[in-house]
Amino acid sequence: MVKKPTPDSTRRSEKSRRAIYDAALTLVGEVGYAKTTIEGIAARAGVGKQTIYRWWSSKADVLLEAFLDLGQQAAEQAAEQGAPPGAEYAIPDTGDLAADLKYVLRATVDELLDPKFEAPSRALAAEGVVNEQLGREFVTKLLEPQLQLYVQRLRSAQDAGQIRPDIDPRIALELFVSPLAQRWLQHTAPISYEYTDTLVDYALHGLAPR
Amino acid sequence: MVKKPTPDSTRRSEKSRRAIYDAALTLVGEVGYAKTTIEGIAARAGVGKQTIYRWWSSKADVLLEAFLDLGQQAAEQAAEQGAPPGAEYAIPDTGDLAADLKYVLRATVDELLDPKFEAPSRALAAEGVVNEQLGREFVTKLLEPQLQLYVQRLRSAQDAGQIRPDIDPRIALELFVSPLAQRWLQHTAPISYEYTDTLVDYALHGLAPR
Repeated sequence: MVKKPTPDSTRRSEKSRRAIYDAALTLVGEVGYAKTTIEGIAARAGVGKQTIYRWWSSKADVLLEAFLDLGQQAAEQAAEQGAPPGAEYAIPDTGDLAADLKYVLRATVDELLDPKFEAPSRALAAEGVVNEQLGREFVTKLLEPQLQLYVQRLRSAQDAGQIRPDIDPRIALELFVSPLAQRWLQHTAPISYEYTDTLVDYALHGLAPR
Repeated sequence: MVKKPTPDSTRRSEKSRRAIYDAALTLVGEVGYAKTTIEGIAARAGVGKQTIYRWWSSKADVLLEAFLDLGQQAAEQAAEQGAPPGAEYAIPDTGDLAADLKYVLRATVDELLDPKFEAPSRALAAEGVVNEQLGREFVTKLLEPQLQLYVQRLRSAQDAGQIRPDIDPRIALELFVSPLAQRWLQHTAPISYEYTDTLVDYALHGLAPR
């Protein structure tokens, strides 16, 4: 991807932003959401508190954008490796629904087990359980857009006659997404590719005999 | 149910226990797991700290038993209303699997929306997300025994030819239990009887056309 030249001031800003995101994610993973402060993030990032307040109004905002930026970084890495723009956000549509869902869920297993991702994600998820306002904000801005990708893929499968027409895709996706989420959130059982593959097969074909 | 006469000392102990459980559940719901202390529970229950240490070694133990006791109280209420002993722990087996699963999931919806249950349950669930040891202890002693009831019911359905023989019941139950859990935990969307009924239908019959 050829980029337009970036002015020096913008490049400096981008560098500061990334440093602040890194500091915010590391800190929340270490001390939890409640004890993370704008002051702590600033100290860790080596910037003044005012630098943070110039761009964000609260620690929730910093953390939300830090998570969105993690996705952006994944996009940049994928682009460097030759993936088409936006590929990392879409669910593949090869025509084989089961294979496409298994592919994305295996990538999610990798992400959930990535140490860089795990501690801050757990800290935020835990806070969202008891802090409904924060929970809803992160769902709206971070989780629901990801779930809507499944909705789109399931709609396309409905058009292709691979999903029953009376199925609500927003509920249907939960049959394979939520089990993985609960195992990860509540430590109820291990997660693996074999496990998520099984969830897709059970959800598509049903538990009852055909 | 006819009970044997209870000695006065035992009755006093039971009363103290219940007062301690109530205090522990109320406190953890109000201030969260991290800020709940044995001292705080004792003060709230109007007992000495040593009374608590005589019976339990940690706040995690008190809370675990307080939750187990909530189940016990539900059992006692059900017995007073004429239900057979243990009925509230088993999943009904009327021969109609879909109806039995819907019945139990509707009861779970009621429980999750019960204010008495909600605040302490959220506090513990949130702590379990970031505190793996506590999370695993509560899963082992509290959540997994409930999930095993679904395993039993699904095995019985397999014997009756209503669930495919190659299905692993421990994974299968997650198709309807985990979506409800994730909606509740993460505030991703509202929960209702209609929603859990839909989950059961989708899981049993599958998303793909038959």
